[in-house]
Amino acid sequence: MPLPELPFPGERLRPQRIGIDTGGEHVAYLPQGSPACHGEGFGPHSRLQVSIGPRRLMATLAIVQGERLAADEVGLSESAWLRLQPAAHEHVTLAHPPSVESLSSVRAKLYGRVLAEAEVRAIVADIAAHRYSNIEMAAFIAACSDDHLDLDEVVALTAAMVDSGARLRWPGPVILDKHCVGGLPGNRTTPIVVSICTALGLTMPKTSSRAITSPAGTADTMAMLAPVELDLARMRRTVEHTGGCIVWGGAINLAPVDDTLIRIERALDIDSPGQLVASILSKKIAAGSTHVVIDMPVGPTAKVRDPRRARTLERMLRAVAERFGLALTVLRTDGAQPVGRGVGPALEAHDVLAVLQNLPAQPQDLRERALALAAAVIEAGGRAAGEPSLALARECLDSGRAWRQFQAICQAQGGLRSPGVAPYRRPVAACRGGRVEAVDNRRLAQAAKLAGAPLSPLAGLSIDVRLGDPVVVGQPLFTLHAQSPGELAYAMEYVSRHPDIVHLGAAA
Amino acid sequence: MPLPELPFPGERLRPQRIGIDTGGEHVAYLPQGSPACHGEGFGPHSRLQVSIGPRRLMATLAIVQGERLAADEVGLSESAWLRLQPAAHEHVTLAHPPSVESLSSVRAKLYGRVLAEAEVRAIVADIAAHRYSNIEMAAFIAACSDDHLDLDEVVALTAAMVDSGARLRWPGPVILDKHCVGGLPGNRTTPIVVSICTALGLTMPKTSSRAITSPAGTADTMAMLAPVELDLARMRRTVEHTGGCIVWGGAINLAPVDDTLIRIERALDIDSPGQLVASILSKKIAAGSTHVVIDMPVGPTAKVRDPRRARTLERMLRAVAERFGLALTVLRTDGAQPVGRGVGPALEAHDVLAVLQNLPAQPQDLRERALALAAAVIEAGGRAAGEPSLALARECLDSGRAWRQFQAICQAQGGLRSPGVAPYRRPVAACRGGRVEAVDNRRLAQAAKLAGAPLSPLAGLSIDVRLGDPVVVGQPLFTLHAQSPGELAYAMEYVSRHPDIVHLGAAA
Repeated sequence: MPLPELPFPGERLRPQRIGIDTGGEHVAYLPQGSPACHGEGFGPHSRLQVSIGPRRLMATLAIVQGERLAADEVGLSESAWLRLQPAAHEHVTLAHPPSVESLSSVRAKLYGRVLAEAEVRAIVADIAAHRYSNIEMAAFIAACSDDHLDLDEVVALTAAMVDSGARLRWPGPVILDKHCVGGLPGNRTTPIVVSICTALGLTMPKTSSRAITSPAGTADTMAMLAPVELDLARMRRTVEHTGGCIVWGGAINLAPVDDTLIRIERALDIDSPGQLVASILSKKIAAGSTHVVIDMPVGPTAKVRDPRRARTLERMLRAVAERFGLALTVLRTDGAQPVGRGVGPALEAHDVLAVLQNLPAQPQDLRERALALAAAVIEAGGRAAGEPSLALARECLDSGRAWRQFQAICQAQGGLRSPGVAPYRRPVAACRGGRVEAVDNRRLAQAAKLAGAPLSPLAGLSIDVRLGDPVVVGQPLFTLHAQSPGELAYAMEYVSRHPDIVHLGAAA
Repeated sequence: MPLPELPFPGERLRPQRIGIDTGGEHVAYLPQGSPACHGEGFGPHSRLQVSIGPRRLMATLAIVQGERLAADEVGLSESAWLRLQPAAHEHVTLAHPPSVESLSSVRAKLYGRVLAEAEVRAIVADIAAHRYSNIEMAAFIAACSDDHLDLDEVVALTAAMVDSGARLRWPGPVILDKHCVGGLPGNRTTPIVVSICTALGLTMPKTSSRAITSPAGTADTMAMLAPVELDLARMRRTVEHTGGCIVWGGAINLAPVDDTLIRIERALDIDSPGQLVASILSKKIAAGSTHVVIDMPVGPTAKVRDPRRARTLERMLRAVAERFGLALTVLRTDGAQPVGRGVGPALEAHDVLAVLQNLPAQPQDLRERALALAAAVIEAGGRAAGEPSLALARECLDSGRAWRQFQAICQAQGGLRSPGVAPYRRPVAACRGGRVEAVDNRRLAQAAKLAGAPLSPLAGLSIDVRLGDPVVVGQPLFTLHAQSPGELAYAMEYVSRHPDIVHLGAAA
């Protein structure tokens, strides 16, 4: 009986860009009845290895019905297509996933064993190479939750995450940085702190993130004032000229495994001290920092909910930082309500400008927080200690030096921009009188997002009252900003369904 | 400023059947730039609630580029479409997922706390209602791994899984069942055991599963001999007439949460005794069994790898069974090599027929295993004890009573079928002489699947040698069976790349 000459079923498939964005998880699409499914035993939700020559990734399989794909075609999700970059006439090979050895260490960790440094490195290397599925990463995060990681394991995890991406080096012995644990809406101190400290001659090459679930990240706000998507060469030139920068870290690939794990941690709402510490410090070490000031807001709706958790986290941050020779200052701050007035990229940029330009209407809480953090950075940088460092920061801000320095940084990054104002605005007024007793930060942020932030950068909201303020009926509590009438309508609809976002107590 | 009248962005979307089978996880597809993404802050891989009136499910979001979906449309994966069953003119509403309270118990379990019965019930109820994502289920499985579940928790998990589906009740005080922990290829004793025991007047309403990763499940094999997709009424009539049945359990919805969890456990390769015990016993309790015989193959490539693990598992099985008043017999059996000759639905059915019909060429190992298990069931059913129960089973099989009983059962299920033989067969011969030292069960099963099993039910392979057999060069080791020349070619190609599936030692 002669056998037909056939390629192995998973080989020589023609890749098709199927135009579906599935987020971080790669998906491969096969037509129903594909010989590859039948021959290889693949079915919906199988994990498989997709390769074009030496380029390969792990994907989850979905089966497409109808005529969209031919029998010798395989569809690729956007993330898989962009990573494999198939050239014309290149073919794809599908195979069963190679066994991922480091998963046995994840299981060992679940069984309570302490992992050796090499095991932690192997896990992180496999995650970096996209060899873990989402559920495998979830098992790893579960295994590391609570206090399951000891100090050596957190140190190993931090080092491995640093090695998963680029590592910056800067001239000079003291490279300063600041970081906020868990954002309060509007807590946009970074541009102010960097301007003050670099105006005083300190070096502060700051990388920031864009919003993931919030109405604005520091990089979104800074993008309203200057270009932030700088390549490494331009970032270096900016720092050479001004001593500092405020750029988007995503273009520079610092500790990318951290971003992968954060996506799963956030979905699981599991936030273990060990992983939080590795996450924060790996980014700082990769950025080349030697001295870091941590802003740790503590409050019932902040990431760190009470003083006990603050102590545990601070203790581990210090111990791990010490192992990497990183000097650390931790500032516990008030996490009870939003900071400043604006929520949304442009609205927060206006707050930053008001403080830097020392305008009468500047938000005092943002100003004072930025000064306290700047003083801590000045002290870490060895320019002054205690009260004089705060005086130095205040003088730098009040004299206009910080504002001139900010303009120089923006110039070096590509030119100062004016944030602009949204065309559609609508105040949300108090239905009755009373004293402001609480602000629901989560719903406030949701209203800002419905109004369009951060994708519509002028959108968001501005807060007109603060905790303890007396309010009369009809007085504006906050004002929604939108770039289209439709978005304003969406946000208004949401606000009208949640009338207690600003909670008023007994009449003042 | 007048605001336009717009529905809330996630409301009144037109559902489209997008024709993509994503397996167990529901996926919703929105067009790029959809107002729902923008307004609700949904992005790729967001979890969202999809509802049509009171019908709702949780889905993962993917974003579709191009013109495939209009701005007011939402695509649904096959599983989501089939579960929501949108009628013409019905609209879909998307919303942020409601917070799943029981996830806090999963986190508590990760933090080492013992869960109360109500907490375990809440977790299982939420999983049953499809409120958990895959990564959330992975976290739950991780939390329960190793020996993290105590006896009370396993009992609670078992009871909750029973309550997640249908529960069968049968007349009479003694309802018998058997179960094999972790299948060896070809270990198809069930049809023989049921025929012997019900011929002797015992009641054995057996539900079996189809293959998930193996070349055949008991339901696949039985389907070659009689209809197995019976509804409950027909299953009941079969048991009334004959005392037994061998049907597919999938049609009857027994402990469906177990199937959901097994999918994730298999992907993670995490197999904790607590979850295995809950999985096995919940199915038996839901099926209405009072006495269960467990076949526990122990061997390096079997599910239970060594006697220590066998002891732990047996102890927990007994303790949990006792709490439900379930009488349990555990038989540890040899798990070193495949059982019988055929691997694949029809090929295994031929083995079963050969034993039932007492043919000279019947596989003796399958016959002896089936007799030992039947004897244990007879003993559990109180018909005999010790040696006499084995004699009773042997007499029933040798006399042809079991074969007549099997024909009666098949008749009651819809009529005896003849399994047929695959048209394309090719022997794989020894390249040299030697003694059979080992069989790679995993690769042997893979070759059978590449030949087409279980989807092509006549496909698979038949094994021509057993451990210890002397072999001369050119002698067939096994024979591939396929329903098409292409599938035979795929399997041959695989076999030629893996020449050591049957490992030969020094010449005999």
